[in-house]
Amino acid sequence: MYKKLKQKIENKTAKICIVGLGYVGLPLVREFLKKDLNIIGYDIDQKKINSLKRGISYIKNIPHSEVKKFLKKKFHASSDKRFIKIADIVIYCLPTPLNKNKGPDMSYIENTLNENKKNFRKGQLHILESTTYPGTTEEYYLPIFKKLNLTVGKNIFLGYSPEREDPGNDIYSIGQISKVVSGYTVNCKNLVKKVYDHIVKKTISVSNIKSAEMTKLLENIYRCVNIGMINELKLVCEKMSIDIFEIINAAKTKPFGFQPFYPGPGLGGHCIPIDPYILSWKAKEFGIDTKFIELAGQINDSMPEYVIKNLNSALNATNKTLKNSKILILGAAYKKNVDDIRESPALKIIEILKFKKAKVFYHDPFIKKIENSRKYNFKMKSVKITNKSIKIYDAVIIVADHDVFDYDLIKKNSNLIIDTRGRYKLGSKKVIRS
Amino acid sequence: MYKKLKQKIENKTAKICIVGLGYVGLPLVREFLKKDLNIIGYDIDQKKINSLKRGISYIKNIPHSEVKKFLKKKFHASSDKRFIKIADIVIYCLPTPLNKNKGPDMSYIENTLNENKKNFRKGQLHILESTTYPGTTEEYYLPIFKKLNLTVGKNIFLGYSPEREDPGNDIYSIGQISKVVSGYTVNCKNLVKKVYDHIVKKTISVSNIKSAEMTKLLENIYRCVNIGMINELKLVCEKMSIDIFEIINAAKTKPFGFQPFYPGPGLGGHCIPIDPYILSWKAKEFGIDTKFIELAGQINDSMPEYVIKNLNSALNATNKTLKNSKILILGAAYKKNVDDIRESPALKIIEILKFKKAKVFYHDPFIKKIENSRKYNFKMKSVKITNKSIKIYDAVIIVADHDVFDYDLIKKNSNLIIDTRGRYKLGSKKVIRS
Repeated sequence: MYKKLKQKIENKTAKICIVGLGYVGLPLVREFLKKDLNIIGYDIDQKKINSLKRGISYIKNIPHSEVKKFLKKKFHASSDKRFIKIADIVIYCLPTPLNKNKGPDMSYIENTLNENKKNFRKGQLHILESTTYPGTTEEYYLPIFKKLNLTVGKNIFLGYSPEREDPGNDIYSIGQISKVVSGYTVNCKNLVKKVYDHIVKKTISVSNIKSAEMTKLLENIYRCVNIGMINELKLVCEKMSIDIFEIINAAKTKPFGFQPFYPGPGLGGHCIPIDPYILSWKAKEFGIDTKFIELAGQINDSMPEYVIKNLNSALNATNKTLKNSKILILGAAYKKNVDDIRESPALKIIEILKFKKAKVFYHDPFIKKIENSRKYNFKMKSVKITNKSIKIYDAVIIVADHDVFDYDLIKKNSNLIIDTRGRYKLGSKKVIRS
Repeated sequence: MYKKLKQKIENKTAKICIVGLGYVGLPLVREFLKKDLNIIGYDIDQKKINSLKRGISYIKNIPHSEVKKFLKKKFHASSDKRFIKIADIVIYCLPTPLNKNKGPDMSYIENTLNENKKNFRKGQLHILESTTYPGTTEEYYLPIFKKLNLTVGKNIFLGYSPEREDPGNDIYSIGQISKVVSGYTVNCKNLVKKVYDHIVKKTISVSNIKSAEMTKLLENIYRCVNIGMINELKLVCEKMSIDIFEIINAAKTKPFGFQPFYPGPGLGGHCIPIDPYILSWKAKEFGIDTKFIELAGQINDSMPEYVIKNLNSALNATNKTLKNSKILILGAAYKKNVDDIRESPALKIIEILKFKKAKVFYHDPFIKKIENSRKYNFKMKSVKITNKSIKIYDAVIIVADHDVFDYDLIKKNSNLIIDTRGRYKLGSKKVIRS
């Protein structure tokens, strides 16, 4: 079975089913199709499937034209579970958000496996790409294989290979990013490696699955902790009237031993605010407190409140209250130049402002509307901005500093700017760094 | 005065006095001499001066042959204060250690200035290179200039430019490392820039002196916090039987957003264990707790105890007590391939072992002996190691993993190895990772 599957992968006749066609799954589809592999795109969201079938993209960084190209390649999009059975390789790109207790919400993986396990069969390779705690892959897949009387490494194969997708990163596409691979047995790992060798420059083998799972967490914990540290130093610098952005840009001229991170209004996106807690949660099982992660969480989570505090002081100085002030949020995305609002600090800031009875509006060319979500209970539509309209706001808060914004125009016409991204020089008129 | 000094710097006739000829000052002397500038090397330590005059180096990374070359250049070494008066430019490379309360010990700067201020004169440029809190340079130099009726920017000039020396880094020498420069006035900054433009590829101007002071602190806080974080994750990984070194090496294959730091037995050297506290101390003045720095300090400081705990468990398993066990420390330097024992965790580990009545020895080819110091009260000499002699120790602790060690030989002949640097594979026989 191993040899047969290996050959199928090598000669590109293997059918690969990508489960979950979001920010991770869809770019993966694209890469495999570029190399002329057979791809089944599977998602339970029929809207996504319909969209793909009509050649329409729903992700900013993948243009419609590329999705149209998919349709000319060996690509089939479906929400029909039976396609899992046809596939030789099943790659899971599913979300692992946090539940209310800041533990990992494994329901997407759990439900997907429960619904699809009857379509598992001999000779398949299953690969999880989701970010999760060390031990997950074995914990969730092995019992299913056992019940089906399948022997891992012999007649079914299991691996884990974390995604390293960085939305909005134009410099590195998947093909240029090394990919960490692992498998339950040596054969498993070899197959996983063969699969990704088609699309990435280099695969990096690690000794077991949990090491690969931990690698991805380390990458994101590193980011989360460094952002927390720089947010803390922002507070120190502000008190000392030092420009933190200038400091960071000076420090990064050191050719070794430094990597720049920038302060901001809080964390966002699917990875950095979430992944570190997955390890914290697991570490508790072993009696360990992950104090850096907790501290980074506290500081990063406090940033939206800090922005509001600075806004409040600035309004107060001009005899205005937050209540009834007209506030414009500029950029609702979680970082610049992306259309992704997941976990965006803009949501938290809007929530606080609404609670304080300010009149809140937002403008984001990439996010036309904000819908109700599990966490936030409001709907909004992006407003247009012009020289004139920007004058009516008592304050403008720059949350995501998209490059398309005209910062001179904003500066010229605003009454007050709360600048969370260091777009304006420290001490500029009308501008409060926050 | 400005124009005259500027010209002197440009045509290399300016006399530059380097005050403090240690790990920072001496490499600086070398760089200026390479470019044929006039250098006075000043140090109160007559032993250093005598050594230089005989062409003998006292720093591992600067060979005797290079010091011999100094003597053929425009170089004069002296402990005579009057040379400060002759100098057009005075560059201070003085230590700023911590006092007992973990505040900065400014006595080196203070004493140097007090002893030398009578030799300050019109037309001089003074530059501080020491790592210190934002505000130091102005706080210490301006009152002296004022008393001497000198006007900064007019007839005397003041600047700050932090050293970025990385002992043991063979890839980047001073010339290849960009240097941050600042000055009290624009003229001051221009002069500082002109001075260093002779020896570095690029000078980076920042808007004021305190920003330059903060830049250096940020660089070292970043390192200290990241080492703290990775030491914490080491504990998590050990509980989960994951090889932290393998994880780090896998994560660093990500081409963006990650920089590797490695766990170890504790921090050492002149910078990383000290500099972050300098900011903590100053931030308290502004009512801010620098929690990341404090947490990193706690975790990094606890590492020597952690090593001892693991040693104790391993000995205990073979029915041995720490008391009376023969323990060999391999590598006493604070990091590999350097001869620098300042703040080395080896000292702390030796102290604990002595306190617990173990019989402690050490071997380090770069550190022939350990002298009494303000902090530690013991003298030791490096012992020789052979296949045979290594067998007599109940345990060997690898503290600094110098590349010159024969790790196979050590492994083959040791009874027990406590490996704090990941030199041996996780799970290797006789080896305990710590």
